[in-house]
Amino acid sequence: MTRVLALCGGIGGAKLALGLTHAAAPDELAILVNTGDDFEHLGLSISPDVDTVTYTLAGLNNAELGWGLAGETWAFMDQLRKLGGEDWFNLGDRDLALHVERTRRLHAGEGLSAITADVAHKLGIGCALWPMSDDPVRTVLDTDEGVLPFQRYFVGRRTEPAVRAIAYEGADTARPSAQALAALADPALEAVVICPSNPWLSVAPLLAMPALRAALAETPAPVIAVSPIVGGKAIKGPTAKLMGELGLPVTAGTVAEFYAGLIDGYVLDETDRDLAGTVAGQGVAVDILPTVMTGLESKQALARGVLAFAERLRCSGR
Amino acid sequence: MTRVLALCGGIGGAKLALGLTHAAAPDELAILVNTGDDFEHLGLSISPDVDTVTYTLAGLNNAELGWGLAGETWAFMDQLRKLGGEDWFNLGDRDLALHVERTRRLHAGEGLSAITADVAHKLGIGCALWPMSDDPVRTVLDTDEGVLPFQRYFVGRRTEPAVRAIAYEGADTARPSAQALAALADPALEAVVICPSNPWLSVAPLLAMPALRAALAETPAPVIAVSPIVGGKAIKGPTAKLMGELGLPVTAGTVAEFYAGLIDGYVLDETDRDLAGTVAGQGVAVDILPTVMTGLESKQALARGVLAFAERLRCSGR
Repeated sequence: MTRVLALCGGIGGAKLALGLTHAAAPDELAILVNTGDDFEHLGLSISPDVDTVTYTLAGLNNAELGWGLAGETWAFMDQLRKLGGEDWFNLGDRDLALHVERTRRLHAGEGLSAITADVAHKLGIGCALWPMSDDPVRTVLDTDEGVLPFQRYFVGRRTEPAVRAIAYEGADTARPSAQALAALADPALEAVVICPSNPWLSVAPLLAMPALRAALAETPAPVIAVSPIVGGKAIKGPTAKLMGELGLPVTAGTVAEFYAGLIDGYVLDETDRDLAGTVAGQGVAVDILPTVMTGLESKQALARGVLAFAERLRCSGR
Repeated sequence: MTRVLALCGGIGGAKLALGLTHAAAPDELAILVNTGDDFEHLGLSISPDVDTVTYTLAGLNNAELGWGLAGETWAFMDQLRKLGGEDWFNLGDRDLALHVERTRRLHAGEGLSAITADVAHKLGIGCALWPMSDDPVRTVLDTDEGVLPFQRYFVGRRTEPAVRAIAYEGADTARPSAQALAALADPALEAVVICPSNPWLSVAPLLAMPALRAALAETPAPVIAVSPIVGGKAIKGPTAKLMGELGLPVTAGTVAEFYAGLIDGYVLDETDRDLAGTVAGQGVAVDILPTVMTGLESKQALARGVLAFAERLRCSGR
């Protein structure tokens, strides 16, 4: 039975998800992952955020790169280059096994959810790992270099183009994870955690599915977001740059506003203590915790802090 | 302009093909390769014989394994096993680049011939390399374990099942390489060499295409086969075992009979000197050469010997 449901994207979100695996019982924790970054490359179906979370929870992630597997080798890419193949998106030799096997299984008719669950199980992950949908949702960016699919913007152009608008193609009609909808409607659910992933690139694709957004708004469990902005900067990735390009003040408060109507609680970093009043003024409960996750200990501590915050909100009836 | 056309399968044939690249000018040599071994595995289009010849001519082949690339690594297979994927057919990390890229290009609508030519060029191969057809031909074996596709028999079951009959599915309707047909009809062609590949498994798929068989029978150039059987044994692979199972005497003479009506000349190993009379009695010219190819030198020597034999036949009007 799911008591804790976490929503997340790639790197930043995966860190807190890993912390949560040490703060909640495996069979009571589910991670719902963004698939707006998914794409087809070289004929392979690639799910970058699902893979980052899978590898992180399995303890196999490459901490140095921030994606892929630890101890990865690159013979495939080296040879692909010699054959004149597209080499703007790196695929490690070991990582390829997941892409090839997933692509094979998708073509054989299995859904992404079933494949992801099986892979997680095979790699020893105890909690549930759910892609946000088995239907394609594709994040597309309107930039000063034209319209770019997510990976072309993120990896191909290293987030350099200025973003003017973001679309989540397919989100209108994609069916959200049935397991996530069931968990959100279940009175047994005790906490929903929106991990400190990029709100516009990693969390928004989930919220762009009307049924999931509604389920989040209506869930009896407290919904808590952890700010990905600390002291006006993003810990990693293009969040701050993107907010600037979208004309938004680069503060943790802006993110709280973005989640308005969905969240009951918001976790600010100690650095942003002075924003507590503004956020509380929006009718959102605030907790202040150290949100910068370096080692495993800080991930666990933040996860425990967030769950304790949820527990307080739940008991106070928020 | 093609002056020398070699027909070949994998390992044994590739050795002589390599020899021929040292005995003929690159722009006058073409290698026509069996695709009856081709198959789809893990969603990838794999062409084992084409790849063995490609890697051998590019000097990249793994001499130890007899297939694949030298210095190969196996991280992909290791991870695939952890994911519960099919692991009976080994795919090296570096080798995978060719399979992924070929599959992508085939799905994009390119033909196997065009892709093979481009890959050969990119890997620095000077002569022409032609798959026998862009249409699928699939060698299938009727065995005491039932009907097995080629790779299931060859790799999956290590040629252990006893073979009762062999079929070349699709050969009736597959269109042979247009370049090969044109070369065979061209008076400029000076020699056709059937390399010492397995006649029933590696050469027969080519001959099973009616138009190619007819073109071989009618070509004005002398057609010479090199015996893959030496002293009643095969140098490598299941040829001798297979001949026994098909009820054929395991001698170099049986192979000459198999090629009856197609070949003008036949090369016996020195060991089989006593068979010269029998083969000559079938109306086929015989030359005796050292056919066991170990180092590069013996490959070159055999290639030169075969071409000299062809030249003698051509000048004598056979």
